[in-house]
Amino acid sequence: MQQTKYILEEKDIPTHWYNVVADMPNPPAPPLGPDGKPVGPDALTAIFPDNIIEQEVSHERWIKIPDEVRQAYTMWRPAPLFRAHRLETALGTKCKIFYKYEGVSPAGSHKLNSAIAQAYYNKQAGIKRLTTETGAGQWGSSLALAGHMFGIEVRIFMVKVSYQQKPFRRSMMQAWGAEVLASPTPVTEYGRRLLAADPDNPGSLGIAISEAVEEAASRADTKYSLGSVLNHVLLHQTVIGLEAKKQLEMIGEYPDMVFAPCGGGSNFGGIAFPFLADKAAGKNVRLVAVEPTSCPSLTRGHYAYDYGDTAGMTPMMLQYTLGHDFMPPSIHAGGLRYHGASSLVSQLYNEKLIEAVAVPQLATFDAGVAFARAEGIIPAPESCHGISAVIEEVKRCNEAGEAKTLLFNLSGHGHFDMASYDKFFAGQLEDYVYPEEEIAAALHRLPSVPV
Amino acid sequence: MQQTKYILEEKDIPTHWYNVVADMPNPPAPPLGPDGKPVGPDALTAIFPDNIIEQEVSHERWIKIPDEVRQAYTMWRPAPLFRAHRLETALGTKCKIFYKYEGVSPAGSHKLNSAIAQAYYNKQAGIKRLTTETGAGQWGSSLALAGHMFGIEVRIFMVKVSYQQKPFRRSMMQAWGAEVLASPTPVTEYGRRLLAADPDNPGSLGIAISEAVEEAASRADTKYSLGSVLNHVLLHQTVIGLEAKKQLEMIGEYPDMVFAPCGGGSNFGGIAFPFLADKAAGKNVRLVAVEPTSCPSLTRGHYAYDYGDTAGMTPMMLQYTLGHDFMPPSIHAGGLRYHGASSLVSQLYNEKLIEAVAVPQLATFDAGVAFARAEGIIPAPESCHGISAVIEEVKRCNEAGEAKTLLFNLSGHGHFDMASYDKFFAGQLEDYVYPEEEIAAALHRLPSVPV
Repeated sequence: MQQTKYILEEKDIPTHWYNVVADMPNPPAPPLGPDGKPVGPDALTAIFPDNIIEQEVSHERWIKIPDEVRQAYTMWRPAPLFRAHRLETALGTKCKIFYKYEGVSPAGSHKLNSAIAQAYYNKQAGIKRLTTETGAGQWGSSLALAGHMFGIEVRIFMVKVSYQQKPFRRSMMQAWGAEVLASPTPVTEYGRRLLAADPDNPGSLGIAISEAVEEAASRADTKYSLGSVLNHVLLHQTVIGLEAKKQLEMIGEYPDMVFAPCGGGSNFGGIAFPFLADKAAGKNVRLVAVEPTSCPSLTRGHYAYDYGDTAGMTPMMLQYTLGHDFMPPSIHAGGLRYHGASSLVSQLYNEKLIEAVAVPQLATFDAGVAFARAEGIIPAPESCHGISAVIEEVKRCNEAGEAKTLLFNLSGHGHFDMASYDKFFAGQLEDYVYPEEEIAAALHRLPSVPV
Repeated sequence: MQQTKYILEEKDIPTHWYNVVADMPNPPAPPLGPDGKPVGPDALTAIFPDNIIEQEVSHERWIKIPDEVRQAYTMWRPAPLFRAHRLETALGTKCKIFYKYEGVSPAGSHKLNSAIAQAYYNKQAGIKRLTTETGAGQWGSSLALAGHMFGIEVRIFMVKVSYQQKPFRRSMMQAWGAEVLASPTPVTEYGRRLLAADPDNPGSLGIAISEAVEEAASRADTKYSLGSVLNHVLLHQTVIGLEAKKQLEMIGEYPDMVFAPCGGGSNFGGIAFPFLADKAAGKNVRLVAVEPTSCPSLTRGHYAYDYGDTAGMTPMMLQYTLGHDFMPPSIHAGGLRYHGASSLVSQLYNEKLIEAVAVPQLATFDAGVAFARAEGIIPAPESCHGISAVIEEVKRCNEAGEAKTLLFNLSGHGHFDMASYDKFFAGQLEDYVYPEEEIAAALHRLPSVPV
């Protein structure tokens, strides 16, 4: 028999998260306040507890994973690494394709890795209540479960269009005891302002973040929790890459290329950063972030200071951005509909240590169906982006007669995204390429801060 | 850290299925033909290939699992065994609770164990096309995937009420390339007859079986595939119990009681039969089948010869039955809405080697939510039945000051059943106890065969 899965034992769950900051050629650019001057950690205390802020600004290479978090990780970790034998056969390739499957988490995606860590640290800090945003619902459902596990009340601002289109992600969050509101809501000042202007505002991730931040900043008992973008979130996700490296090591393999979808950056950073450590040490490995052509922040956005949310409540961060007021088209990979990208991912991209490609929506669903029919697992639309780029690379290799070892992060299953597959099969999905003039126009709406 | 999961390696996937017939005190009662006389294997050749029929009537204790099937099982097997530490804490018990989690299969339930075996044997027999029925869709989605893996075309008769209420299970089957029809359909004689009498007939498992059998019997290129009830299906499912035994052995544990939901019997037989071998050898272990109070074939049905389908096309089998024309109420555990039970399970129950309990619907959802909040995984409504019985046993043990070791089969996740959870939270579900007079009345409609 050919081995399909490479499994670690619970004792092999990483003991430390890997902090890529320690291996970056330049220190991360500082966040800026409204006056354009660097802000210190204290600017974040209104919305984050101190132990999280400490991680956010840390330069230590290895950060210990608390025992309680590792214990919670045993609910599903270590996650399996698969060799995609059947997909390789279907593609008629000599390439070896491996994928790390994060959909085995009870919430169905990698997001639970950080949700558990954040719930734990907030609990340690005595926080009773968390707010957050969610798009497609992967992050919201993860925080709902994690909050319940650590006895923290969770209120989730869910992008209204997703709230309506993905009712079962909402049910899932409710099953774990969280409160879910359709954003924009009437419970925040910012939400009320938007609804007054347009009662049918469909919402966006940026808007939901603004609402969640506003509420956390204005209530003493409440902090805010973010599912991507920030350094500490990407840090927590490095368990993915650390495990994958160990699993490949067991069989004497090392990837030529590592792929992952990239929206805010936690999916990509989670699998890629531990390999970047090797790259910093001279190893030859290419790390590829895959984004939608409809929301191409890395491949076509401006490298500039911008806000993390739509209302401009967060500090400004140096990042690839399409403008914080960008309203992404309603593609089905809701988790990738974000105007910007993690500062860490952005800086590494700017310094050419990582690569990025953009793929159109139809190609991602083609790839997802091909994958499901070969490997069984129906992937989330976000995950389909990584698969699509891998299949493209395999075709290139086949033509060139090459045989590469490729690794990607299968970040989640698509069980709550079947309506998107239905639309794809019915021919109701379209490709969307973000127009050049809109990208140019966004430049003028960015906050004016010299880079 | 406390260990949560007990994992085997791929080489530990069982090499043989266990055939409980070899350890039964009496041989299985034979199926009967329309004339009331025992039918031989040849009565089945119109709808099953010879290699499947051979398994159906085998008395061999161990039947080799073909390498191709074991290879396909590596997509998700061995399945993990979990210790429910967090549920134990929530219940404040000294009992040890273990569950075998079959929801890790790409189709989301244990059904794929038999679907792959059946697709393989049909392929070996040169069959190009399979028909089948599905209720909630767990079996249909499994056969859709398995059929695609072995290059067999699959047509699925899906109970109409489920087709309408669970559109995403349908999407899943379509994603794997199967054709799905809402039963009763106009493509069979029997379906047309029912639609003529009532165009709004909501369908039932028994009707869908009749349609699938009719089509297979009338087309030379097509055979039929059943997801439960029959001996060979329960045989294939014994990988569940065989793995669970090995996993418990690794840690020196042995269950006092084993629980599983019971509709047709594949879920229960799969986990329980390998323990019955030990019981036959003198070991003290209680095996408990859990069924809904709304469809109580074992606990309240008649032990009699009856058909397996509504139209009476199958041979008659000795079983606990509510009558083949029974229309079960629309409870949400669609997989348990079947009028009868496997002959093997029925005979073992009649001979008091196994036990059965019936649980009401609301208690099963209460149990499912308690489980999800403790263990993370949201269980399928069918699986909630087993959990409900386990929680009842734990409460009994707590009161009596006992500490038992309990094992149950968590047969699938509830990702495609969130609408049921929504209704439960909204207070829209009801308990239903099947009325005594209807059970009595069913006796008169059974085919008249002396037992």
